[in-house]
Amino acid sequence: MFETITLAVDDGIATITLNRPDRLNAFTPQMMADLIAAFDRTDADDAVRAVIVTGAGRGFCAGADLGDGGATFDYAERPDKLAYGSPIGPDGAVDWGHEAVRDNGGRLALRLFSSLKPVIAAINGPAVGVGVTMTLPMDFRLASADARFGFVFARRGIVPEAASSWFLPRLVGIGQALDWCYSGRIFGAEDARAAGLVRSVHAPDDLLGAARTLARELTADSAPVSVALTRQMLWRMLGADHPMAAHRLDSRAVWVRGGSADAREGVESFLAKRPAAFPDRVSDALPRWPGVMEDPGYS
Amino acid sequence: MFETITLAVDDGIATITLNRPDRLNAFTPQMMADLIAAFDRTDADDAVRAVIVTGAGRGFCAGADLGDGGATFDYAERPDKLAYGSPIGPDGAVDWGHEAVRDNGGRLALRLFSSLKPVIAAINGPAVGVGVTMTLPMDFRLASADARFGFVFARRGIVPEAASSWFLPRLVGIGQALDWCYSGRIFGAEDARAAGLVRSVHAPDDLLGAARTLARELTADSAPVSVALTRQMLWRMLGADHPMAAHRLDSRAVWVRGGSADAREGVESFLAKRPAAFPDRVSDALPRWPGVMEDPGYS
Amino acid sequence: MFETITLAVDDGIATITLNRPDRLNAFTPQMMADLIAAFDRTDADDAVRAVIVTGAGRGFCAGADLGDGGATFDYAERPDKLAYGSPIGPDGAVDWGHEAVRDNGGRLALRLFSSLKPVIAAINGPAVGVGVTMTLPMDFRLASADARFGFVFARRGIVPEAASSWFLPRLVGIGQALDWCYSGRIFGAEDARAAGLVRSVHAPDDLLGAARTLARELTADSAPVSVALTRQMLWRMLGADHPMAAHRLDSRAVWVRGGSADAREGVESFLAKRPAAFPDRVSDALPRWPGVMEDPGYS
Repeated sequence: MFETITLAVDDGIATITLNRPDRLNAFTPQMMADLIAAFDRTDADDAVRAVIVTGAGRGFCAGADLGDGGATFDYAERPDKLAYGSPIGPDGAVDWGHEAVRDNGGRLALRLFSSLKPVIAAINGPAVGVGVTMTLPMDFRLASADARFGFVFARRGIVPEAASSWFLPRLVGIGQALDWCYSGRIFGAEDARAAGLVRSVHAPDDLLGAARTLARELTADSAPVSVALTRQMLWRMLGADHPMAAHRLDSRAVWVRGGSADAREGVESFLAKRPAAFPDRVSDALPRWPGVMEDPGYS
Repeated sequence: MFETITLAVDDGIATITLNRPDRLNAFTPQMMADLIAAFDRTDADDAVRAVIVTGAGRGFCAGADLGDGGATFDYAERPDKLAYGSPIGPDGAVDWGHEAVRDNGGRLALRLFSSLKPVIAAINGPAVGVGVTMTLPMDFRLASADARFGFVFARRGIVPEAASSWFLPRLVGIGQALDWCYSGRIFGAEDARAAGLVRSVHAPDDLLGAARTLARELTADSAPVSVALTRQMLWRMLGADHPMAAHRLDSRAVWVRGGSADAREGVESFLAKRPAAFPDRVSDALPRWPGVMEDPGYS
Repeated sequence: MFETITLAVDDGIATITLNRPDRLNAFTPQMMADLIAAFDRTDADDAVRAVIVTGAGRGFCAGADLGDGGATFDYAERPDKLAYGSPIGPDGAVDWGHEAVRDNGGRLALRLFSSLKPVIAAINGPAVGVGVTMTLPMDFRLASADARFGFVFARRGIVPEAASSWFLPRLVGIGQALDWCYSGRIFGAEDARAAGLVRSVHAPDDLLGAARTLARELTADSAPVSVALTRQMLWRMLGADHPMAAHRLDSRAVWVRGGSADAREGVESFLAKRPAAFPDRVSDALPRWPGVMEDPGYS
């Protein structure tokens, strides 16, 4: 199905494994396409309550594959970019709103941002460059004690990508984010935990089990449609200018879901002190409202 | 005066007590109306320097009153909503901008957001659902060791309300906010303190005293108009896109207040090493500037 | 060169020293002008990789110079304001968009916000009022154990300025920011560190050395153009409403810098396991994109 990853669903949890172990799971345009397709599938599959992302072998993701050497980041030269047509006009001017100018890491980050299921990164080894920035729009990062991290862009002559300039300061504060991105320094799992980048650190053999336990705790007693809406609401409101934006959004959501079969079951099961059995499914019960949850376009 | 709360003013501190102890102070439309009216009064009363909100009996607020059972959150059915007229047109389409669609918790949250006096929650017991989300726009949360918290919305088949998707990630970080809102888990005062939701934890008998001590520390040496403006500025700028928004706002505020009797007294008392006696009152000296401090409307 | 500060460049590090030690380096309109001019120079000088700001004598900056007594903050009376012409029309109405209404601390804060080099505050003593708010747009604050801090505006009858209502809640959280700004309380270096305002606390004699060590760690292995862009990106995206804003910005930046000589050197040196020697200079290689990195105007 996928060239660069595997996807398995078991007991309500999808596990996506970056699967180029001979290259420490280095990121390629194909891996971007595979990951986006995998999240399309986990969003559409009502059997999936949560998603875990991890790496095959001893690495999580070593960053962009540098197989093209010094031309690696020269997008104007890359064949995968030319598939979108050239953004360079006859007069040599770049069309900045052109699809071909879009950073691949950012395409993936925005797809993760709009996931309908909780996403847990289980970082089993080195996570460097796009290998760490791709985890920032995930909800939680769990790390093996062997994990190492680096926002190494300035050491490569480029800049933080994958929309990490938006995510990272919100996760660890502007000072810590600047330190890591200016210096490009490599740091370990314990430093990442102390800074708030990583939720918890585990012995290598315990990492996936801990991620699965967390996935179950997050979803066991909750309505799937509620969880999907909660994810959309909290991430989107993280950037909103005024709480009125949240009031507009949650008023609609409470109205729609307050009259649902899920809400009736949620209250009745609580009053009866029995576990809830929520009937509604994300695939057909998730509401949409014009002008409230729309993403801006790239331009 | 009020059906569901009490309001007492003593020594510059207003204490609002949620007062349905037989229902663990469960939230009703009337409680929303009473609280909004109470904050109208504390804003207008120059004798009030700060506001404490607490609960009567053994609870703070157990959340929405579930007396209507499974129909509790079915707003289309609720009589208090019909007072605004129906948002449902003859073709069955919902007018999402209609007042009747507005979440009651959010109406209260936005009123708290624009309070002119510092607000301290003294959380004496369980604070669940809207019982905890109503405290997020308050400035500080102090908790009894007996307090318990839960963002239980997903367990009831609904979603976080009261604009909490805007407030909560800003108070405790996106990861902690998602964990609590996905899982709906119940947690204690010490966990709340460790996560930054609660400022300090107190023995039950010490809670109100600690809140009063804090209220006095915050206001004893400060000009009331300065405090009111400071509250508006910091909360509003928390969502602003660029520091230029703050520069526009504080330039106007420094201009207006810099020429005030308060500023003269503030500097002269400092230079003379004597306590200040600020003459200006919030009720008539608080400046307004078109286009700078306006709230967006609901629509 | 400067009336109120000194500027020295040594080994890639510019040190700006506030230099009115007999007034504890109290802030004046001339100091604002001198600091803005100094940052124009450090931005333009490719020999400067980072900037340290410290104070001469036993203070860092005691705040606005109160030499004018009770009229200090009465901008309508101040000669330096009249240089911009009067914002007061014949009918007595204030033109709020007029340059003369602009707060001097905010002019400086916005200049620091757009610095192209990392900025480290080495706070050697009292930093009060604008003396502390001017450090908020700097990237890192290191403090002597002798440092003391105070957001004393409400005690002087005015309000937080220098766009601090935008910066401070983002650095320390809204609750801590409100506490300091309501109360105007004076606090020490260890409290500042615990709250996240200060990165580290040092013995007085070690402070400047620690700042220089940090400056070198941040820049030693990184491309100067990458560092300049990183600073712009992270600070600006801290206020952006949606990660799409970052995707638009970093897509352009990766495109432009990915094809640069720096990127070629960055990757090739990494693959060859040798130190990089980045050829590009901030003064002529920093890209600009219409509509993406523009600051809003004052009005």
